Amino acid sequence: MASLTLSLNNPNITIPSSPSQQFLPRWINLNKTRNSLPTSKPFSLKQSTTINCSSSLSSLTPDLEEETSQERMEEEYERPLNHVWREIQGCNDWEGLIDPMNTHLRQEIIRYGDFAQACYDSFDFDPHSKYCGTCKYQGAHFFEKLDMADRGYRMSRYLYATSNINLPNFFQKSKMSSVWSQHANWMGYVAVATNEEEIRRLGRRDIVIAWRGTVTYLEWIHDLKDFLRPAHFGDDPTIKIESGFYDLYTQKEQTCKYCSFSAREQVLAEIKRIIENHKGEELSITITGHSLGAALALLTAYDIAEMKLNTVNNGKIPITVFSFSGPRVGNLKFKERCDELGVKVLRVINVHDKVPTVPGIFANEKFQHQKYIEDTISFPWSYAHVGVELALDHTHSPFLKPTNDFGCAHNLEAHLHLVDGFHGKGRRFCLVTKRDIALVNKSCDFLKSEYGVPPHWRQDENKGMVRNSDGRWVLPERPRMEAHPDDTAHHLQQVLKPVSSPLEAV
Amino acid sequence: MASLTLSLNNPNITIPSSPSQQFLPRWINLNKTRNSLPTSKPFSLKQSTTINCSSSLSSLTPDLEEETSQERMEEEYERPLNHVWREIQGCNDWEGLIDPMNTHLRQEIIRYGDFAQACYDSFDFDPHSKYCGTCKYQGAHFFEKLDMADRGYRMSRYLYATSNINLPNFFQKSKMSSVWSQHANWMGYVAVATNEEEIRRLGRRDIVIAWRGTVTYLEWIHDLKDFLRPAHFGDDPTIKIESGFYDLYTQKEQTCKYCSFSAREQVLAEIKRIIENHKGEELSITITGHSLGAALALLTAYDIAEMKLNTVNNGKIPITVFSFSGPRVGNLKFKERCDELGVKVLRVINVHDKVPTVPGIFANEKFQHQKYIEDTISFPWSYAHVGVELALDHTHSPFLKPTNDFGCAHNLEAHLHLVDGFHGKGRRFCLVTKRDIALVNKSCDFLKSEYGVPPHWRQDENKGMVRNSDGRWVLPERPRMEAHPDDTAHHLQQVLKPVSSPLEAV
Repeated sequence: MASLTLSLNNPNITIPSSPSQQFLPRWINLNKTRNSLPTSKPFSLKQSTTINCSSSLSSLTPDLEEETSQERMEEEYERPLNHVWREIQGCNDWEGLIDPMNTHLRQEIIRYGDFAQACYDSFDFDPHSKYCGTCKYQGAHFFEKLDMADRGYRMSRYLYATSNINLPNFFQKSKMSSVWSQHANWMGYVAVATNEEEIRRLGRRDIVIAWRGTVTYLEWIHDLKDFLRPAHFGDDPTIKIESGFYDLYTQKEQTCKYCSFSAREQVLAEIKRIIENHKGEELSITITGHSLGAALALLTAYDIAEMKLNTVNNGKIPITVFSFSGPRVGNLKFKERCDELGVKVLRVINVHDKVPTVPGIFANEKFQHQKYIEDTISFPWSYAHVGVELALDHTHSPFLKPTNDFGCAHNLEAHLHLVDGFHGKGRRFCLVTKRDIALVNKSCDFLKSEYGVPPHWRQDENKGMVRNSDGRWVLPERPRMEAHPDDTAHHLQQVLKPVSSPLEAV
Repeated sequence: MASLTLSLNNPNITIPSSPSQQFLPRWINLNKTRNSLPTSKPFSLKQSTTINCSSSLSSLTPDLEEETSQERMEEEYERPLNHVWREIQGCNDWEGLIDPMNTHLRQEIIRYGDFAQACYDSFDFDPHSKYCGTCKYQGAHFFEKLDMADRGYRMSRYLYATSNINLPNFFQKSKMSSVWSQHANWMGYVAVATNEEEIRRLGRRDIVIAWRGTVTYLEWIHDLKDFLRPAHFGDDPTIKIESGFYDLYTQKEQTCKYCSFSAREQVLAEIKRIIENHKGEELSITITGHSLGAALALLTAYDIAEMKLNTVNNGKIPITVFSFSGPRVGNLKFKERCDELGVKVLRVINVHDKVPTVPGIFANEKFQHQKYIEDTISFPWSYAHVGVELALDHTHSPFLKPTNDFGCAHNLEAHLHLVDGFHGKGRRFCLVTKRDIALVNKSCDFLKSEYGVPPHWRQDENKGMVRNSDGRWVLPERPRMEAHPDDTAHHLQQVLKPVSSPLEAV
């Protein structure tokens, strides 16, 4: 590990003079990517964005006259990710990196989006399965089953939440009489970069937390009570979050081994454990999620920072949220505290999606007197988005058909497609990583029919039914699912020890 | 072949004194089957049905006093199928074989039902596939892909029909711009028993013709014009059939290689070829189909008999139809001619299914003056069912839930399940071959939920999408599909030569 850390911090690292596969993830083929870059010069770039970055590395966006999009992207490739990763993770709030869209940032948004999408691709939604509400794959095989074995991450822990809370339209419940759990739903995972080549490429060992949201049904929005309650993760009782999200994150159910710890306790204990295991290494914590998972991502980021889990030695492990189609989570105080703690949030949204407009339709960050009504009259329905918004518009993609379907506008794969083609406001939509457009239709009907991709095509053969040795069709039994590691309580105790205020829910 | 024929005709064949796997299809395990036989004696059987059979073999149902169902079935097993196959194929119109249900007959109905079901299990229904309307598998791999390789039959020919006829709700059309055919739909197949052990078990080489129907949607019923037209397959113009069925069977489309011959021409040419190839052998022709496929099955049976294709040397190859949920096909004259030609039809129906009640809701075989109105006033909407009815009732199965869903009542797998449990009127429903109940839910939602079988579970992984070498998800190209064998015209000419009357549609 020592040598790895050394090479990561070595400023003499060789930077090739031209874009090279060396600095790209193995799952992106640069030659292919290049072919899709715009070859015309459709717009002139005149900009003098100065990046004031705390990183020791040089600025990301040099002042260039008449730079073509192609040239700009090649320039960006020349500064490998391991040199610029702090900016890409938002240390400067992505200033100058979004419009025009920085090539590394695009790839990283999509890469983390894939980690969030993996929660959907692996989730058992079938109410006729007794495993409804679980992850279909064992942790050890998770990335392999999702064709993500080459991402260089190892599954560290599955996260569960209890469904015994007031979000009836969010949880998937089995209709079967005999089920794996009456109370739990699989909610996501914590994974850690372990492949040394990938760690070198990233410039640090990354810890990713991915939270599951909802794929198609948006009914859970109506379950939100618009009711704010104090988070009480820190000392300030004026920091408030929506009560449904709070419950989802903090409630537990002692009678069920999967949710005997709350989602909060599971994720805090795990992050504590991982950071301890990798003392002295350059680390990052990246949290991602879509829809309700985006709310959990932000809540987790705030919690980890508030609990000072990311404070190590004399520095802080950067915490970044790449969220997709996320609703508002807390009040203005919550937003201000996130900023104060240095939590960096990039919110990827589609302007036609309704979810990011709730809760707080009447009093939100766009309302100029929000601070007044919150501080002075304690108006109880005031919400504020946190972080930097990357606003996409699905009508700009020539691959998508016009639709008023909320599910399409909210779909995560559609967002990743839009990120791939986004170059900046008023700039032509043009796919860069050549992300497979077929993915858009995995669980919606959004692609124009001329592309010949069936809608809602992601499905298991025979809904998972297989013929057993007697020739009968059955839903096979699954290997016993692990609940929580034995050391969860131990790590949790370490997390909660230094905090003086009583924690209601923990 | 000589030795095979010899053994088939040898009356000295050994009959074991107790039921034995030897005379059962390899896909039925007698030991398992035995476990499901009723062990109680719930009813007393007093019967003196006498079988007057032209077959040289002994009677099927001896006059037994106080025989239990178990004993009766064991008795039946003792007379192997190759001794009683003519009765099972209906030479005596299944007299005494249906109530109580003969064990061989039950197995044979289910076996042929499986051949009909194979048409659904292999059909590409996906309008987003450019192969929509085809069989998903190549003929050479058909039975293997459907786990029916052990049935001992070889695919002989695929059958197509043109969709350029007035049955808009029957045909499956691709929404894609580039499609395999603008005009054709795969309609079924002709297969021949080739496995010598199976031929020995059956007592003859069987030729099976299976026609595809509709799985769930019953809209095609409303397309039926209730309009009768002369078949003109023979000389009598008063023999009439419903015009939609007639069109489906006889129309062709010269611009499409798959329907340059009509379904009729394809099947007649194929049967001619097969019979010629197996001159001197003991043969049978068994035609099966569900729903609209049942109508085609009856039409084909009539046609083959009317065209005298089954007349060989001094005898006739028996023609049997096992039809499921079939509508009426022709007028009373048509029915009388079928009887006259010796076509044997066993119609398996569910009393709650609407399809067998059409066409001819007002004037049908139950109307005592049908003959008068048809002969005297040429009433144009008079239809008659042909053959013997096996009436099942899905409310008698304890495995099925109450439902008013027409699709459930019409479902073929549900019919096969009902056949498996049917013992006779007023007798307790009890599965005999232990046919897997999970099959019922393949493409409907009919099983009680306590059995834990997902509804509509038959589906392809990712709707057939696969990742190509570039990592992109695509619907793979299929191997070139064969249209018609080169000798089709030759055999067809031989079929049509002896017929004097002009054939409009051929």
